[in-house]
Amino acid sequence: MIAEDALIARYLAPLAGPGALGLKDDAALIVPPQGKDLVLTKDALVAGVHFFPDDPPASIARKALRVNLSDLAAKGATPAGFLMALALPADLDESWIAAFAAGLGEDARAYACPLLGGDTVRAPGGLSISITALGWCDSGKMVRRTSGRAGQTLLVSGSIGDAALGLRLRLEPDAPWARALPGPLRAHLADRYLHPYPRNALAGAITAHAAAAMDVSDGLLGDAVKLAAACGIKGLHPRILLDRVPLSPAARAALALAPDLLQTIMAGGDDYEVLMAADPDTVPALLAACAAAGCEASMIGELALAEDPAFVRADGSAVPFSSLSFQHDWTA
Amino acid sequence: MIAEDALIARYLAPLAGPGALGLKDDAALIVPPQGKDLVLTKDALVAGVHFFPDDPPASIARKALRVNLSDLAAKGATPAGFLMALALPADLDESWIAAFAAGLGEDARAYACPLLGGDTVRAPGGLSISITALGWCDSGKMVRRTSGRAGQTLLVSGSIGDAALGLRLRLEPDAPWARALPGPLRAHLADRYLHPYPRNALAGAITAHAAAAMDVSDGLLGDAVKLAAACGIKGLHPRILLDRVPLSPAARAALALAPDLLQTIMAGGDDYEVLMAADPDTVPALLAACAAAGCEASMIGELALAEDPAFVRADGSAVPFSSLSFQHDWTA
Repeated sequence: MIAEDALIARYLAPLAGPGALGLKDDAALIVPPQGKDLVLTKDALVAGVHFFPDDPPASIARKALRVNLSDLAAKGATPAGFLMALALPADLDESWIAAFAAGLGEDARAYACPLLGGDTVRAPGGLSISITALGWCDSGKMVRRTSGRAGQTLLVSGSIGDAALGLRLRLEPDAPWARALPGPLRAHLADRYLHPYPRNALAGAITAHAAAAMDVSDGLLGDAVKLAAACGIKGLHPRILLDRVPLSPAARAALALAPDLLQTIMAGGDDYEVLMAADPDTVPALLAACAAAGCEASMIGELALAEDPAFVRADGSAVPFSSLSFQHDWTA
Repeated sequence: MIAEDALIARYLAPLAGPGALGLKDDAALIVPPQGKDLVLTKDALVAGVHFFPDDPPASIARKALRVNLSDLAAKGATPAGFLMALALPADLDESWIAAFAAGLGEDARAYACPLLGGDTVRAPGGLSISITALGWCDSGKMVRRTSGRAGQTLLVSGSIGDAALGLRLRLEPDAPWARALPGPLRAHLADRYLHPYPRNALAGAITAHAAAAMDVSDGLLGDAVKLAAACGIKGLHPRILLDRVPLSPAARAALALAPDLLQTIMAGGDDYEVLMAADPDTVPALLAACAAAGCEASMIGELALAEDPAFVRADGSAVPFSSLSFQHDWTA
């Protein structure tokens, strides 16, 4: 296996930003811009839990960075850089590391989020990647999860359910709906599972027009319940209009083939879209700003004072869900 | 096993600082103080590599935080908080987590370094902890590893070799020197392996009087070579006077019992002391400031233009070392 120093010099130093000091010091050094607050997030990915060990190394790298970028996007923050702890099994060869670093480097450039520092360690138990991402937002302007209020409209970016369906395709490639789905639609779902598309382009729109926001990672319904609960208002619950939840053509086709996939779509997670709450009079401006930034948002319901969360059809009938989130971290 | 939400609410939320937003948002929010630069470091610890899986959970927690605090100390930075990714095997019970959080909380308070955020994930392959620590230093005043120059004196804080000897005691408790060492001295060495004592108290002295600094984690001799190399000056090497390297009474006794422990002491690592380079005319002020801060520093040699690093006795004779650093991360 490649030595640690060589790994850093050959594959990681080329990804380093100015604050990284060439990865040659004990620490990274960042000069905070005037008038900005620092936003920090940390997500770890473990082989066999968050990705398949035989996924392409570049895809693993992209996912590890992008799930963190998604948190910054949901807070309206602009990426500034990241630190990474890379725990590597001894049997990974140098070509794996080269491919991992290439994917990571492309994303670091694409999202203007350079490597600032980190640690590489040996991992007898399997590959894992822990990333801390930094971003800046204007002073006092970070969009909280906790600032939703009754009467606000709920919106979500992009489309929901694709990644969870892509995971189902990986786990059950011979399911009737999977076999019936045209190849290009299968490919779309598979890609959305491998590669989150964090909505950093929406940071400005979210900051300007959303009252509250969070990224959708564990499942739309469960995350909407979490947002409402985080606001600390007794009886505040989401009311989600299921028919308004935006679906890709692939997800729509899968759902037509197997209506019970609604559970997977609404609660499967790994969407890395942004769930937003906005006062009704700012919704038009938010929708326009998202569209102008290249990613449509959709109104999917509201925050309401109620006995319970409600997940309803257009005719008002409630739909039961066996769970609201994918518990990939904690259920064996 | 305890659910993730309960783990966070019961054990981690009590450690959270104001910027953590109660661990209820996607990200932490930090308002940078005027006139300060941000210093960031990240070290990961893996069970079976950096600690024994059956070490006391509070000790594992303390080590994970303190190795990061040591990097901040060496940069002259004041701790501001940390983010933690905790990857937990499914068979850890709640009492383990309670003890881990208790140790972590005590250190977070002792070092004024609150929890800001993070992630808890399931780890099929074994326990690991990845921490990103943040600190502040006065603008433009972070002490670099790269600013050493020929003619500067090398100094080190505290004492060297204790932790590496403590590890040897764990691995070879029946070695003759181990059996001959009095119990209190054995206990001192064992404690220094389990618990780094990062020199954050020296941050002010280092900032005011050191030209360059780094923390000693991989072995004093190897780290001195790394500091010299990082300075980018052709032919700059450390000249270490081995008899000047500060040893604890326990290390001194062990060395008297088994002179070949010199290799372990000088190159064994896990010291978490600070290696400093200082212009000779600032050395008296640096020594005085360290002593005033409660941790003596010792002059151990110099940076010199030479063919090679030199590790010498008082009589000028060179001592050969089979390696200069402990390669715990990469050699199986």
